[in-house]
Amino acid sequence: MHTTMPESHVRQAATAHDVARHAGVSQSAVSRAFTPGASISPAMRERVLAAAAALGYRPNLIARSLITRRTGMVGVAVGSLANHLYPGMLEALANRLQAEGYRILLFTAPRDGNADPEMEQILRYQVDAIVLAATTLSSHLADECSAAGVPVVLFNRTSSRAAAASVTGSNHDGAYALARLIAEAGHRRPAFIAGPPNASTNRDRQEGFLAGCAAHGLPAPIIVPGGFSEAGAIAAITELLARPEPPDAVFCASDHMAITVLDTVRHCFGLRVPEDISIVGFDDAPPAAWPSYALTTYRQPIQPMVEATVTLILERLASPEAPARQVVIPGELVIRRSCRLPPGVEPEG
Amino acid sequence: MHTTMPESHVRQAATAHDVARHAGVSQSAVSRAFTPGASISPAMRERVLAAAAALGYRPNLIARSLITRRTGMVGVAVGSLANHLYPGMLEALANRLQAEGYRILLFTAPRDGNADPEMEQILRYQVDAIVLAATTLSSHLADECSAAGVPVVLFNRTSSRAAAASVTGSNHDGAYALARLIAEAGHRRPAFIAGPPNASTNRDRQEGFLAGCAAHGLPAPIIVPGGFSEAGAIAAITELLARPEPPDAVFCASDHMAITVLDTVRHCFGLRVPEDISIVGFDDAPPAAWPSYALTTYRQPIQPMVEATVTLILERLASPEAPARQVVIPGELVIRRSCRLPPGVEPEG
Repeated sequence: MHTTMPESHVRQAATAHDVARHAGVSQSAVSRAFTPGASISPAMRERVLAAAAALGYRPNLIARSLITRRTGMVGVAVGSLANHLYPGMLEALANRLQAEGYRILLFTAPRDGNADPEMEQILRYQVDAIVLAATTLSSHLADECSAAGVPVVLFNRTSSRAAAASVTGSNHDGAYALARLIAEAGHRRPAFIAGPPNASTNRDRQEGFLAGCAAHGLPAPIIVPGGFSEAGAIAAITELLARPEPPDAVFCASDHMAITVLDTVRHCFGLRVPEDISIVGFDDAPPAAWPSYALTTYRQPIQPMVEATVTLILERLASPEAPARQVVIPGELVIRRSCRLPPGVEPEG
Repeated sequence: MHTTMPESHVRQAATAHDVARHAGVSQSAVSRAFTPGASISPAMRERVLAAAAALGYRPNLIARSLITRRTGMVGVAVGSLANHLYPGMLEALANRLQAEGYRILLFTAPRDGNADPEMEQILRYQVDAIVLAATTLSSHLADECSAAGVPVVLFNRTSSRAAAASVTGSNHDGAYALARLIAEAGHRRPAFIAGPPNASTNRDRQEGFLAGCAAHGLPAPIIVPGGFSEAGAIAAITELLARPEPPDAVFCASDHMAITVLDTVRHCFGLRVPEDISIVGFDDAPPAAWPSYALTTYRQPIQPMVEATVTLILERLASPEAPARQVVIPGELVIRRSCRLPPGVEPEG
């Protein structure tokens, strides 16, 4: 009940005591009927739920949390929903957590910045766990969470500073595989449009791409910053195409940038893809599959990554002293039409 | 503190009492220092915050909510994040609510279905208000929320059954304007790819489009269902193009469907847009502006819609007895290249 309602208009809320009396059972039975996994016979549970429905009783999970020390809330800070990978991740995570009886308390945080101020707010809500997507935290705040027994899982990022658990795709190996594909298709002038230097995903993809180019006889790629943004991607491809020897294959550190680069080379520079220039990305975000783009990319498997995130949370709630695990979920090369291909290799679809 | 941490590893949390003693002030001063808008001198506030930082004190907002009867949480149920309109809306709403001191407790709900089961869960968390995006609720549950003093705002939907406040774009007028544009450009065979019949946005857009066609000398449009989904949109355009007299202009009830229809007519049927067929949408979702689509559409102004949503929440928290308002935010025609145009009208950009 809210104090903002004048007394006369507020319907008096039924209590667990009222429900117990109405059903002719103990208050403990009422409590057990509303606690997932508690020991109660189906008939007893049915009787309690019928009485609760008749009286309009609704357990107050917030009051209960002061006793159980569990709010059932997972704080999720997202650095960006503009990248088309994250809305799907958030929806999958919400569905998966709802199935486990948890809810998402949502925060926005600086993309690839330090989420410490948001973390302070999240912790005041006594969340049971924290997921940080595309943002990170200081080692100081990671230590505070650890001291408070609140597990933190980084999603699509790792941290060398903070001892946080993490779930990522295979960033290094995926970028290596893309370099190999580009080399075997006969490209000679690779370029890399990078994300922010402090994003672990960007660093791992860059290292993998450079290693793959070196191992397959390609020169070192030209590297230009794109900042994981549309404006940054346009500036980067414009700079690359202004060079005396422009690249013949461009690896963009995210599909979000690759989509923008595809549109820019076609519609601003009048180039054909892949005949004049090959473009590849990373993520397999939904628009990569749209026929206008048909982007060759390396998939980050969202559903398994979300499963692993929930598993890490539950593991660490059960065993807070277990070391923070860094989970890498294998992805796969997705070959579409935006990149020239080696002889014998066919695009999907 | 979590009970899952063994006693010996749990750092004893500092209390407001500890902070008061350390700062040499009253407990009331500590409370006021952490309450937005409370009366306290800057110097006193500074002293309290310094002591809190030194002791690692963090107010427990959950415990406090039992006294204030405000959790600072707004329950948001989203029917779909696949439509590219909603991630931007969710990010804008989260930012706007964070600025007002509120947080989003996120739920997923059936798209254009009944969100009652999720609403029951949301209410158990004692949220201060509820926003439903692309989903709706029964009049029964709307009454329960009203009795509990929890304002409900429908976002991008209205409800004839439930007396809930709502914020929408100008669905009827926007669709009417698109019909007029199509008529003045000389099209003769309009079609409408509809959303779910129970979605108020779909109903209003359909009525506006039919009225606009009738008023501007066009025959009644062929109407086929598309269900606001990609698969539904593909089935709908395939059915339309199989007719002996296929349409020369197709209005899709959402940009999300229009993008899929554009890709399908070009890449599966080899048609040119707009030379062979004109496609228009509704929303001005981000991909509508991407050069590969350059979709002519009617804009739903997300930021003003989010502002109006927050205003409605704050209004109704302050005056719970005020009647629920239905706010319509005017949009505008966005003319790009996916529709043939009347003489003298130029696409933007």
